[in-house]
Amino acid sequence: GPAPFFILGPCALESEEFAWDMARSLKEIADRTGIHFIFKASFDKANRTSVGAFRGPGVLEGCRILGEIGKELGVPVTTDIHTIEQAEIAASFVDLLQIPAFLCRQTDLLEAAAKTGRSVNVKKGQFLAPLDTVNIAGKMRAFGCEKFLITERGTTFGYNNLVVDMRSLYWMREEGLPVIFDATHSVQRPGGLGGATGGDGVLAPVLARAAVATGIDGLFMEVHSDPANAVSDGPNQIPLEFIEDLLVKLIAIHHASH
Amino acid sequence: GPAPFFILGPCALESEEFAWDMARSLKEIADRTGIHFIFKASFDKANRTSVGAFRGPGVLEGCRILGEIGKELGVPVTTDIHTIEQAEIAASFVDLLQIPAFLCRQTDLLEAAAKTGRSVNVKKGQFLAPLDTVNIAGKMRAFGCEKFLITERGTTFGYNNLVVDMRSLYWMREEGLPVIFDATHSVQRPGGLGGATGGDGVLAPVLARAAVATGIDGLFMEVHSDPANAVSDGPNQIPLEFIEDLLVKLIAIHHASH
Amino acid sequence: GPAPFFILGPCALESEEFAWDMARSLKEIADRTGIHFIFKASFDKANRTSVGAFRGPGVLEGCRILGEIGKELGVPVTTDIHTIEQAEIAASFVDLLQIPAFLCRQTDLLEAAAKTGRSVNVKKGQFLAPLDTVNIAGKMRAFGCEKFLITERGTTFGYNNLVVDMRSLYWMREEGLPVIFDATHSVQRPGGLGGATGGDGVLAPVLARAAVATGIDGLFMEVHSDPANAVSDGPNQIPLEFIEDLLVKLIAIHHASH
Amino acid sequence: GPAPFFILGPCALESEEFAWDMARSLKEIADRTGIHFIFKASFDKANRTSVGAFRGPGVLEGCRILGEIGKELGVPVTTDIHTIEQAEIAASFVDLLQIPAFLCRQTDLLEAAAKTGRSVNVKKGQFLAPLDTVNIAGKMRAFGCEKFLITERGTTFGYNNLVVDMRSLYWMREEGLPVIFDATHSVQRPGGLGGATGGDGVLAPVLARAAVATGIDGLFMEVHSDPANAVSDGPNQIPLEFIEDLLVKLIAIHHASH
Repeated sequence: GPAPFFILGPCALESEEFAWDMARSLKEIADRTGIHFIFKASFDKANRTSVGAFRGPGVLEGCRILGEIGKELGVPVTTDIHTIEQAEIAASFVDLLQIPAFLCRQTDLLEAAAKTGRSVNVKKGQFLAPLDTVNIAGKMRAFGCEKFLITERGTTFGYNNLVVDMRSLYWMREEGLPVIFDATHSVQRPGGLGGATGGDGVLAPVLARAAVATGIDGLFMEVHSDPANAVSDGPNQIPLEFIEDLLVKLIAIHHASH
Repeated sequence: GPAPFFILGPCALESEEFAWDMARSLKEIADRTGIHFIFKASFDKANRTSVGAFRGPGVLEGCRILGEIGKELGVPVTTDIHTIEQAEIAASFVDLLQIPAFLCRQTDLLEAAAKTGRSVNVKKGQFLAPLDTVNIAGKMRAFGCEKFLITERGTTFGYNNLVVDMRSLYWMREEGLPVIFDATHSVQRPGGLGGATGGDGVLAPVLARAAVATGIDGLFMEVHSDPANAVSDGPNQIPLEFIEDLLVKLIAIHHASH
Repeated sequence: GPAPFFILGPCALESEEFAWDMARSLKEIADRTGIHFIFKASFDKANRTSVGAFRGPGVLEGCRILGEIGKELGVPVTTDIHTIEQAEIAASFVDLLQIPAFLCRQTDLLEAAAKTGRSVNVKKGQFLAPLDTVNIAGKMRAFGCEKFLITERGTTFGYNNLVVDMRSLYWMREEGLPVIFDATHSVQRPGGLGGATGGDGVLAPVLARAAVATGIDGLFMEVHSDPANAVSDGPNQIPLEFIEDLLVKLIAIHHASH
Repeated sequence: GPAPFFILGPCALESEEFAWDMARSLKEIADRTGIHFIFKASFDKANRTSVGAFRGPGVLEGCRILGEIGKELGVPVTTDIHTIEQAEIAASFVDLLQIPAFLCRQTDLLEAAAKTGRSVNVKKGQFLAPLDTVNIAGKMRAFGCEKFLITERGTTFGYNNLVVDMRSLYWMREEGLPVIFDATHSVQRPGGLGGATGGDGVLAPVLARAAVATGIDGLFMEVHSDPANAVSDGPNQIPLEFIEDLLVKLIAIHHASH
């Protein structure tokens, strides 16, 4: 099969300048390594563990920034939406709408995203069995959206832990679904830091290698130039300085595996 | 401690007449058994497994019916909301707003519910560790809501299955949280019927007995006069004809346990 | 149904004197509360987390002590065996042979226990689904043993944790199996202390109440006069001083539940 | 790092002729592909789900066959042992003793295996957290065995299912442990066929690819010339006709990954 494409970018739109810096750096790396990538950043962290946590610039400002980055750099852009209202706004700026995992069963949100005509990436809930994504696909098709992706990001495994079942990637692709693997959120330890979600960023490249060898259509990885000072999900993001070597290795694994 | 109160009613507002029939029947049973109860029914099943499934009469019509039932019968009423907009509408008709489990981490929805001044019952996500409800409590208090409840409804356990960890009830109460146990949704088999959620209604009374013996503040049970023909969650609801005997037994277990 | 019987005693045969003290104390409590009980203690802790941990007096010495206690006090006694050779030795001294959970699938050990003619209590492996105990029952019957019990002691739940699925008790009894609930080992945190198994003894009475309300044939609880100084499983054993009140409450819950 | 070695062979010693045929075929494949391999077969299936299931030729006959195969073909051989007595017998015929996963906590069995002076491969229990294998390593070293391996073969995940957490391979290797991945037993569905263990053999190569990309020291795969007619674990074994292509691909993935 063809090499997987990549969804890369920082967890949050920490600032306009930061988003541009990250996007330009990733564009250069993509050009050098010959990968296809979609730039990702969130305008609102809507389900933070604690109430005082950083949220983001909001839908209009965030999507404007993403739209300008995409236009200027010639790179498709994506972001996650949380309400029906945000679907239409985001769709006028970004190429791919992402549905958060906790919201993957909210029929009206799926419908709103589908009705925009944009591609939609539905993250598989941590509570969802792999084959239950077939029902999500059924909803998307019923709402007229054929360009959707399903993203695996780990399954609830006891308390404050996720496990990635690599069989899930296989099963979903056997059902004909285009499957993305989210390497950074899969290594979260939900609630593992008490008032925040922990994780172990060193594990994201490990699981990315495994997923590519398993077989996937795309790979999602959050990348940050300074993870230790990221405003959200710091422990899990891959340092920008490591991403080029990792991408090269992942492409090699893909070719060895298929 | 005092005997638990009960949240009882059908899964869905199948029709106005049906809601009245169920409420009147439950009111009579509550009066005979001396229990306190809140009448529950949903105006919208917003996260059905399949797109063609029954949804409900919608927020305005549904809450109007519930409000009239509550006023006429002198019974508090509750329903679940899924958006910020629904919070305010529902709050003008019902006494207790319920946040669905999948949405328990959506900060804006919690804020909207809290700001209405109504009591709020947050269902604990199937992906959430018991002590992570402390963060939910922190959000509710930060938004000015002190009258909130946390409802245990089972935890993701492998695929298409939930398990109830009775330790969860103990741990959350030790944190000072008022804890409800949802006996009917806890026996769901998510996605277990392919395009629908299965379950085993005979197990709901079993887990209800265990939870009362463990120690809870309230018990949530969906009740239906004809579960086999219910428009949603049929396999899990407790038949109306069995509920009175069950309530009597549960009160006896409470007194034996504490 | 009839009230559950009890299997009570310390985790390990720490010394002959200690075993006698515990047995005499429990016998007095059983007489006062009117319960039926079997005295339990282990002669060998054969699967300790670490190699340096306390093991016990061995099969011959341990079973001799148990046999004398049983004869003198008029109380049935039980202990756990780990090898074929131990089955025959133990059977000449004790009334009920216990198969450890990790060994519940070892066909030869089940056969050796069955062939002694004694009753056999097979603990359900932490890795076993409830209905898979039907296969264990099939083995016991094939080996000529009809007097066997199945003990629930929790299921692997993520890492370093167990969860008790109260549905398991119901399902196994529906299969016609006599079901014991082990309240102390169910609250273990396997490997939770690094080189040793942790747990939380305050939870054992909580789960015991839930299991009795669910419906069981017998209840297993390890009891120690000084848990903090027990040579094994200290964190989980119930203090002797609390056991009488707990037994009274559990009998009351049983009568309220059935 | 160096390419992983392989442990290959049929689940059971179905007959002497069958064992020779499988060993010769695998030797030819190993020679052609340049891999190092250890030939594996079991002389006794000691923990079958049902009592009537095939067991095997027993320890003496089985180990004699394995020893002759190893000597004649110049290939190291391995088998699994279940009792202290079998350790010494097997050690006089085979190069590597394997401890079954259910028995990985049985201190006396580990000691008996360690004391033979042979290398020992301890399978990690389905109930064991990755870091708890450090305690197993501690036991092995305390008993004088430095040449031991730890084999990941999946973790209990709800009922009748296992999940492979690829992080486990990484964590155990970070502890300095030599880690084998067992691709065939990891795809078992324990008890999934009622009276027998099911599984899905198409998944074994999928997980093998993922594990090699993750990073392992060795790979264990059961291979059978006719899985559909295997006397045990038929659904999970990899057909002999597919193994050569798979080995070539796995070696390529290893080189791409490291």
